[in-house]
Amino acid sequence: MPNSEREFLRVIDRHFPNHAPGLLLGRGDDCAILDPGGPLCVSTDVFVEDVHFRRAYFSPADIGHKALAAAASDLAGMAARPLGFALSLVLPDDAGDMFLDEMLGGMAELSRAIDLPLVGGDLSRGRVLTLDVAVFGAPGPTGRLLKRCTAKPGDALLLVGDIGLARAGLLELEHWGRRDAKRWPGAVAAHLRPTPRIAEGLALAAIETPEGPAVSGLMDVSDGLVRDLPRFLGGFGAELTLARKDLPQEVNAFFTAHSQDPVEAAVLGGEDYALLACADARSAPAVLAELPQTRVIGRVSPEPGLRLNGGQVLRPGFDHFAKPGPG
Amino acid sequence: MPNSEREFLRVIDRHFPNHAPGLLLGRGDDCAILDPGGPLCVSTDVFVEDVHFRRAYFSPADIGHKALAAAASDLAGMAARPLGFALSLVLPDDAGDMFLDEMLGGMAELSRAIDLPLVGGDLSRGRVLTLDVAVFGAPGPTGRLLKRCTAKPGDALLLVGDIGLARAGLLELEHWGRRDAKRWPGAVAAHLRPTPRIAEGLALAAIETPEGPAVSGLMDVSDGLVRDLPRFLGGFGAELTLARKDLPQEVNAFFTAHSQDPVEAAVLGGEDYALLACADARSAPAVLAELPQTRVIGRVSPEPGLRLNGGQVLRPGFDHFAKPGPG
Repeated sequence: MPNSEREFLRVIDRHFPNHAPGLLLGRGDDCAILDPGGPLCVSTDVFVEDVHFRRAYFSPADIGHKALAAAASDLAGMAARPLGFALSLVLPDDAGDMFLDEMLGGMAELSRAIDLPLVGGDLSRGRVLTLDVAVFGAPGPTGRLLKRCTAKPGDALLLVGDIGLARAGLLELEHWGRRDAKRWPGAVAAHLRPTPRIAEGLALAAIETPEGPAVSGLMDVSDGLVRDLPRFLGGFGAELTLARKDLPQEVNAFFTAHSQDPVEAAVLGGEDYALLACADARSAPAVLAELPQTRVIGRVSPEPGLRLNGGQVLRPGFDHFAKPGPG
Repeated sequence: MPNSEREFLRVIDRHFPNHAPGLLLGRGDDCAILDPGGPLCVSTDVFVEDVHFRRAYFSPADIGHKALAAAASDLAGMAARPLGFALSLVLPDDAGDMFLDEMLGGMAELSRAIDLPLVGGDLSRGRVLTLDVAVFGAPGPTGRLLKRCTAKPGDALLLVGDIGLARAGLLELEHWGRRDAKRWPGAVAAHLRPTPRIAEGLALAAIETPEGPAVSGLMDVSDGLVRDLPRFLGGFGAELTLARKDLPQEVNAFFTAHSQDPVEAAVLGGEDYALLACADARSAPAVLAELPQTRVIGRVSPEPGLRLNGGQVLRPGFDHFAKPGPG
């Protein structure tokens, strides 16, 4: 742990440049000044030790990466272009200088990869390692931001990214710890190092058909599809059509080995950081053509409720309140 | 503690309206969307139990108030007009529904008073009650934001607000607890319920002289004058001229009763949330005329270092790192 705020700021400056396009004033004053040039998206995401992560199997760099990834995913979910982020950090005494350096290093690496500069923040000591990340974004070249609750019955539901993989990784890491969690490297990586789908969000907003923009609504799936879908549908329901062939091989193998249905486990998921979009039935093919990693996973239905492959899904997904232990 | 996120959001909605001018999209999507219409100020401030406050003498409403006040003071320190704030809240299991309701109530009351709507945030359970507040602001009617490090030798240093009072309150509350801290009500209130000086910041930016704006630089004094002044002066120093008559009566009485020099204690201060401004010597009278609560507390000197009434001040002020215990 650094001995003074000045020392901490030196570590910060070593990892994060203090200038960026769209940043009128960087760190070091009462506030940073951004120049969004129009509407500004803001979101915050808090990442708490032993609730969202464990130091037993998260490396310091993983912690830094994931705290930023989870927050940045909310920008992806609006099809926003990253402008900057602020980090409020609560550091316990046992987080030494090397720990801090590695944690900020992991965060800085992702920050560069997605062009999301650190513009400010706050620091406190405290008993529990806590990272709160506020992200700021602006519309991309299209000028459009994509919201939830725009879906209409008959719309196609589209997914970009994997579901269930991070959940498998969490279960594996909780059971075996990091050293022995070797059987499912993709699942473990999905849990420790999720990718915020910034580029895909911007790409989805940019797809045009002769009738106009192809995608009408977007959100990021962070609490599991079963829990996030009702938030997306705004009173309507959905008929989901998902088979094992739509899932990553590790999801099928992991949940089969644990006597769970992989498709059910995947829609419960959690921390997937996938993107969920809707498009009217005529526009969906344009999306699949322009962003081939997109999959159609179902259709919006007029009645509320979620049906999976003709059956009923009732169990709630992921709730940081309802569930003990991290994940 | 609420049983579900939905229940928590209901409590939030009861306390905070979800619409405001300049808010294009309120809570409930991946991000909120602000419409700053130009540059946007952002700052975050984290408020951690047993580091920044103790539940032993902070009421739940005090906690909500002060977490927001400390963050909003950074907007005041740029002369920014409030646009909105986001709250990331980590709630321990022993923070019950009534506690949460009162805490949000105290926050909502200040939010209304300074016209700073809640636009989003995040919630987690966790072992340590932690509130991280991100604030967003825009230039006021003048279009000017006031930064640090603009002072020139010879400039007058101006203060709006009291110094030392919150520090006396902290010492009293730490020693006596809330029930018995009756001797210094002003000091106790300054510690528990500081006022972010939003209106004064905007007023300072608006004062004009025939040569142009009177005030050239501004910051909020949150870590004590001795600590914050060097950050304001950008390499220059200051000759401070402060007498007991410039201090609140309770500051004089409290520190005299504790065998400390009140003026020294006041410049060390901490959590004052006063505003520190600079103006060239010819413009200073215009500031005093238009904002009579302003006091001249000294002058910028060409050499670094702070001199108090002709002597040397060397001791650092307030550092959340260097100092055990809350405050």
